[in-house]
Amino acid sequence: MRIIGIDPGLTRCGMGVIDAGGARRVDFVDVTVARSTADMAPHKRLEIIADEIDRMITLHRPDVVAVERMFAEDNVRSIISTAQVAGVAMLAASRAGLLLALHSPSEVKAAVTGDGRAEKKAVQLMVQRILRLNSPPKPADAADALALAITHAWRGGAMSPTAQSAQHGGAALPDANREGLTAAQRAWADAERGTRLSGVVAQSGAKRFR
Amino acid sequence: MRIIGIDPGLTRCGMGVIDAGGARRVDFVDVTVARSTADMAPHKRLEIIADEIDRMITLHRPDVVAVERMFAEDNVRSIISTAQVAGVAMLAASRAGLLLALHSPSEVKAAVTGDGRAEKKAVQLMVQRILRLNSPPKPADAADALALAITHAWRGGAMSPTAQSAQHGGAALPDANREGLTAAQRAWADAERGTRLSGVVAQSGAKRFR
Repeated sequence: MRIIGIDPGLTRCGMGVIDAGGARRVDFVDVTVARSTADMAPHKRLEIIADEIDRMITLHRPDVVAVERMFAEDNVRSIISTAQVAGVAMLAASRAGLLLALHSPSEVKAAVTGDGRAEKKAVQLMVQRILRLNSPPKPADAADALALAITHAWRGGAMSPTAQSAQHGGAALPDANREGLTAAQRAWADAERGTRLSGVVAQSGAKRFR
Repeated sequence: MRIIGIDPGLTRCGMGVIDAGGARRVDFVDVTVARSTADMAPHKRLEIIADEIDRMITLHRPDVVAVERMFAEDNVRSIISTAQVAGVAMLAASRAGLLLALHSPSEVKAAVTGDGRAEKKAVQLMVQRILRLNSPPKPADAADALALAITHAWRGGAMSPTAQSAQHGGAALPDANREGLTAAQRAWADAERGTRLSGVVAQSGAKRFR
């Protein structure tokens, strides 16, 4: 299974591609950060990010697009533009006919570090170790995108009760068993119970690229 | 000048098209409401709305896309999905090479009713009168979309100081003068000074459809 993780942002949008095999093995494929600057028109900025998402999907043909799940209570100044980018990422997934997965930041941090409130640096270091990279992915947006993809590989199709989309072609991926987990994954499994919502996997009815 | 107003929403997304002529004359062209239901996958819902936006742009070939401006402080439960739809609407505008205008709800209410805190019903009634329709546009999302377009026709390219995009091909449209205003427009002009931000018009660098 090939997964692209997308960490939405208008200034920097991280995209990380991994392959997930058996025995929780994950392999690095590609990572990039799409950028736009504040001196550009806002709709043009979204187009630049959307074009790069389309390019990565066409290039790597992932099975799943994992996007950061956002919450109305996330009281951050950039919530509007971040949600706008998440919207164009989700649209790209649907138009390519791909599975969509949403994972919250705390789920991602818990999955890769065992701590749902881990710092950016810890996420970067764990992504480097898990993917056996020579150096931590930079900037943090690149690491976050890869961490999203890893989270999806390990969490699989943990369906939340609100995932009504499961009735509409949603694919339930195998849940990770407690046996055979690494220490970090066990810590994650424990920490995960404290996170707000579990992931959602949904299959778009749209045509697939391939 | 042809304007399409888009009132973003995942369940109902209003789109209203008007023609703006001299002497503040505005004429009704078309209105529609794109809908998606909560039993569908979220990315598929966005695709349905995006396809309808593309269809309306292709059909009516507007010069300007006016989208509701959102604020991080808007403490509403639907802020994420609404911003996601606004994002795909802005992307559609950019990919069609159209001007983008953002107007806040209080600007829209003030423009059409003279009261920045007007109720939905007052907006519907004023949109009916201004566009000389036989009945108020329903649902409220349809009226709101037409009100957005009317607001843009009357406010024109009122550039906010933050509209850096003006340097990048932004087109300043003629500002309304106080002379020749209707009572509602004068009331708006007065009320408008109390609104949070003025509109932004930005030209995307993308190719135009026509």
